[in-house]
Amino acid sequence: MKIYTRLSLIPILLFFAFLYGCSDNQNNPGNTSAEWALALHGGAGTISPNMPDSLREQYYEGLRLALRVGEIVLREGGSALDAVELVVKNLEDNPLFNAGRGAVFTIDGKHELDAAIMDGSTLAAGALTGLTTVKNPVSLARIVMEESPHIFFSGQGAEEFAGQTGVERVPNHYFHTDIRHRQWQRTQTDDATLLPEDWLEGDKYGTVGAVALDTNGNLAAATSTGGMTNKQFGRVGDVPIIGSGTFANHIAAISATGWGEQIMRNVSASTIANYMEFRNASLDEAMNFVLTERLNPGDAGFVAVDRSGNISMQMNTLGMYRGSINSRGERVVMIWENE
Amino acid sequence: MKIYTRLSLIPILLFFAFLYGCSDNQNNPGNTSAEWALALHGGAGTISPNMPDSLREQYYEGLRLALRVGEIVLREGGSALDAVELVVKNLEDNPLFNAGRGAVFTIDGKHELDAAIMDGSTLAAGALTGLTTVKNPVSLARIVMEESPHIFFSGQGAEEFAGQTGVERVPNHYFHTDIRHRQWQRTQTDDATLLPEDWLEGDKYGTVGAVALDTNGNLAAATSTGGMTNKQFGRVGDVPIIGSGTFANHIAAISATGWGEQIMRNVSASTIANYMEFRNASLDEAMNFVLTERLNPGDAGFVAVDRSGNISMQMNTLGMYRGSINSRGERVVMIWENE
Repeated sequence: MKIYTRLSLIPILLFFAFLYGCSDNQNNPGNTSAEWALALHGGAGTISPNMPDSLREQYYEGLRLALRVGEIVLREGGSALDAVELVVKNLEDNPLFNAGRGAVFTIDGKHELDAAIMDGSTLAAGALTGLTTVKNPVSLARIVMEESPHIFFSGQGAEEFAGQTGVERVPNHYFHTDIRHRQWQRTQTDDATLLPEDWLEGDKYGTVGAVALDTNGNLAAATSTGGMTNKQFGRVGDVPIIGSGTFANHIAAISATGWGEQIMRNVSASTIANYMEFRNASLDEAMNFVLTERLNPGDAGFVAVDRSGNISMQMNTLGMYRGSINSRGERVVMIWENE
Repeated sequence: MKIYTRLSLIPILLFFAFLYGCSDNQNNPGNTSAEWALALHGGAGTISPNMPDSLREQYYEGLRLALRVGEIVLREGGSALDAVELVVKNLEDNPLFNAGRGAVFTIDGKHELDAAIMDGSTLAAGALTGLTTVKNPVSLARIVMEESPHIFFSGQGAEEFAGQTGVERVPNHYFHTDIRHRQWQRTQTDDATLLPEDWLEGDKYGTVGAVALDTNGNLAAATSTGGMTNKQFGRVGDVPIIGSGTFANHIAAISATGWGEQIMRNVSASTIANYMEFRNASLDEAMNFVLTERLNPGDAGFVAVDRSGNISMQMNTLGMYRGSINSRGERVVMIWENE
């Protein structure tokens, strides 16, 4: 009788296990510990779900490629810092995303790039704003972090610093892409015709970023952007602001995307880490707190990883280009809330 | 008998009340609620207690004058925002402090100024880095906050923004003072002769800042600096970084001074506010946490006020020029730990 009772529990337990499996939040695939983990984003905003399939597939492919770059580093025991630098560099080189090549145009019809990188194990950081000739801003940010007593350089000073390093330089028009140029031109008119670049509307807030935990238990974050379309000369957004768009410590690594001013005034990235630490909350809970209690709907999205390898990717915008992978082989690439 | 027992408690209670009064930390005079409160600083660092009396008196006088400016605003029911702007403007105009006139020299022998202001009631903020011709950077920060959709402008873009406003401009040499010039010149040599400017050594990290609570319950913070002596062109410190050198929300208003890079990588100002909110800690406890658990000895100092009018002014440096006043008439002006 007793054995019968116990056996009868098995299908019931299996049923609950099945339910538990189904409730696994696809946005946050790494909710038990992993040896290494990586998450990345390619910007958040009002990305239309009516995007043509061919373009959607290009985005997925870009996200998958960047994930693969980080995976190779982390799987081989490489550092979180190397992983996030190389992933962001890959996304900077992809003209689909608003960072590096493919950056949006400023009000003056030029390109100004911002980037930051941070090592959670030492709190070392490097950041730049207003770059105009550095091919990969994230790599210069890493050089600032490792070779300068300072953290943050702006404008001409940042370019001058670049000149003292071996970092690759390009003419400003290297960042030009036709689609971004048309997008910028149309901000100057009232033309309402639907053009291919309208599918990139979300990229008004475009940014790329990556966060990682490596097998040594170190966390790192990096973010890079071409800023807002038509932005005013010299405007600094959240990306190079340590604590706002980019942050990593011993608790978590976070990269933000969205309306830079909102992210800055709420010091969003480090508030996620502080909430976890001071409230003893999970990464999901902390990110949810900032997205719902601090920010407004439509403001922003974040990707983050904590020291246990938990991944969280959440936004209060319609979409966010994002992806993650961990040592357990869990791989996700998504744009909208439910896919 | 019962009455006798109760009466006998009175001297005991009085004794404890006396002890409580004695334990009142002189650094933090406002530890019960006040209708309005103001705290300010003029920089922190290794300020020698052997400073000549005449110079010491000049500093005290400068701090008292600035307190008086804020007191007039707040006593009349003016806003915290007006108070911190006018106090910082007053300190910028005082050549004793490293902000506005009296700013230190960059490596190129010029002056580059940073400032920020933040309204805790709305989280509106304005910040600037790399200004070269704006007489009062804090006032331009307020214009950015009130008139621009952006928060933060850098370098040439910041100067261009200034040109679109009615803000007072000056030639760069307006910021020149002989004492700072000699100080800068001596960074280029190994000359170890003791000169008057050596009493200003602490101003390597010199900054001015103010925080206030007004009678409407609103908090505000503002900070301004000439940066580090001999700093590299385009280096951005903590002062204009919302969340690091300057922060205000509905919980507290904080202004930092010290080693900018350390303040930035620890996102110090907003971590104080977050610790208060998430740990339900007092302002003193939160500031102490950041100074002892996050920063290293010699790194920094903060002045802050919370929504109950509590004031905290603490540093882990040898000295910090600081002062505070509140609606209960408590007035403090100090440089070292125990005076």
